[in-house]
Amino acid sequence: MIKVVVDCFGGDRSPQANVSGAIKSLNENNDLYLILTGDQEKLEKELSLYTYDKSRLEIVHAKDVISCEEKPTDAIKKNKESSLVVAYDLLRQNDEINALVSTGSTGAVLVGSVLKVGRIKGVNRPAFCPILPTMKNTFVGVCDSGANVDCDPQQLVQFAIMGSLYMQKMFNIEKPRVALLNIGTESTKGDALRKETYELLQNTPSINFVGNMESRDLLSGNYDLIVCDGFSGNVLVKSTEGACLELMKLLKKSFMSGIKNKLGALLLKKEMYRIKNYMDYNNYGGGVMLGTKKTIVKGHGSSKDTAIYHCINQAYNMEKSKLREFISEEITKQTSKE
Amino acid sequence: MIKVVVDCFGGDRSPQANVSGAIKSLNENNDLYLILTGDQEKLEKELSLYTYDKSRLEIVHAKDVISCEEKPTDAIKKNKESSLVVAYDLLRQNDEINALVSTGSTGAVLVGSVLKVGRIKGVNRPAFCPILPTMKNTFVGVCDSGANVDCDPQQLVQFAIMGSLYMQKMFNIEKPRVALLNIGTESTKGDALRKETYELLQNTPSINFVGNMESRDLLSGNYDLIVCDGFSGNVLVKSTEGACLELMKLLKKSFMSGIKNKLGALLLKKEMYRIKNYMDYNNYGGGVMLGTKKTIVKGHGSSKDTAIYHCINQAYNMEKSKLREFISEEITKQTSKE
Repeated sequence: MIKVVVDCFGGDRSPQANVSGAIKSLNENNDLYLILTGDQEKLEKELSLYTYDKSRLEIVHAKDVISCEEKPTDAIKKNKESSLVVAYDLLRQNDEINALVSTGSTGAVLVGSVLKVGRIKGVNRPAFCPILPTMKNTFVGVCDSGANVDCDPQQLVQFAIMGSLYMQKMFNIEKPRVALLNIGTESTKGDALRKETYELLQNTPSINFVGNMESRDLLSGNYDLIVCDGFSGNVLVKSTEGACLELMKLLKKSFMSGIKNKLGALLLKKEMYRIKNYMDYNNYGGGVMLGTKKTIVKGHGSSKDTAIYHCINQAYNMEKSKLREFISEEITKQTSKE
Repeated sequence: MIKVVVDCFGGDRSPQANVSGAIKSLNENNDLYLILTGDQEKLEKELSLYTYDKSRLEIVHAKDVISCEEKPTDAIKKNKESSLVVAYDLLRQNDEINALVSTGSTGAVLVGSVLKVGRIKGVNRPAFCPILPTMKNTFVGVCDSGANVDCDPQQLVQFAIMGSLYMQKMFNIEKPRVALLNIGTESTKGDALRKETYELLQNTPSINFVGNMESRDLLSGNYDLIVCDGFSGNVLVKSTEGACLELMKLLKKSFMSGIKNKLGALLLKKEMYRIKNYMDYNNYGGGVMLGTKKTIVKGHGSSKDTAIYHCINQAYNMEKSKLREFISEEITKQTSKE
């Protein structure tokens, strides 16, 4: 049995979307057991709308919710009755619980992963790795993307090892193409951090390092994993998402001006919908923490039920694939060499 | 007379686009004098296609071209007969030459600006500031965007002062809204560099500091100038450009599949063209160096003649507006306070 605790509050569509997504995943996976945290009454009301195997789901009451305005460290330390902290405490205290899924405050989920769950032995810093769809129908992971704003080269190498294993095991890529985010493709480019990391990555036999990547090529489909510090990784992911969103908004607006455009847009409706859908994170789960003792999946704050369904499936599949064990093994090999 | 030296080689469409753009700007501005550097024979051949005031244009021969593969510092120091180095030497040796425009290797242009031209007194590090069109029909500048990969808070404050003056003088924005690029909007977000810079910016009365900006909001039109270190600025600009390009490519491809889509695309052709045009850097000039003793404008490597025309006009207008004097004055005030 894979046991996943689902924080059912904190997202923009909580708890409806969380419960709906949870049930869909539960009904699909016979060896999945779910623990939902949050306001018991509200969750029971929501659950009453669905048919599911009641022996594989339980509620653990939590009366509070962490807001995105709260300082993450304070929230995790002090808001003990929040759905997220209750979920983290369950994860920490119960060996048989494998994973946690949340759509709440990103900062609080990241802080909780370190304070409540801890690192796999040998891992210097756990990293946050979201994925984006590329123009070649593949996915590209970005590791780290916000958990560690200050990084050293050794940490970046570990991000590469962990992220590569993630892309390999979860997306069936035999030898994920790992690139270092830089301001040019030449090996001599970038600051001291990039130069030193480049050399280390070249000498890391367990990964398929293909060199530097310039930001403009993120969606090209030529790379499977991008290695970066959390600050520039956050900038990379968020500016890409932002640009796509703004451009789609602009197109929508301009397609609605004038009869000719409206007619054209009507004909292209299905195609536009397909593209929007393709880029929509709701259709492919959330970002994951890599290097923590248990599996943690963080969905977008505005996740719909489909997104949460994918996040839970993702956590389930990560456990099934024994990703954590692979990471632990590879990191042990790496650190013993140093 | 405003004298601008135009490096006519090194771009993807050189020298045709450079000469064509130069002539267009020359014919429009009666007090503009141009010096074109590059292969004399080729330039003369190109110029023979145009009608223009020959008393306001001269060629200075340079037989070589710097390629993007050359290491920038080596190229500037050793490739003395390249069109860019000849242009830089003219700029340095002649007080009456005001500005330089190039579409060659970005690295070489940046290095040349420091080695050949030097800084305005008090400026710690010159910065590179490109602009992007926003969704509200405004422009947003990003300073620094690649000239300085390692920065300290004091440098970021100077980038803010210089960039703010640039947006004010060149885009007629009375009080440019200056934001600090960060991984969250709260003042406590980010690494040590961001936290310290935030405080300093709050205490810089000459700018209108509006707080942190998350990358996803770059194109929102809610900001006029984004302050950042050159590494994350490069990531910000390049990933935004890359995402827009990839998305437009995807749209184009999918609009060409099937008769219904093709018909829809045909109806929307004008609108799509308008949007593509709106986002096209060819229509709004290049990035500028801020804090150098003379004006330097760097156009995209793939600049068409329109882009080069805009770049030369930009250099001309920067000189007309006395931007360098304003920067010098403000930086003197700032450094004398410290």
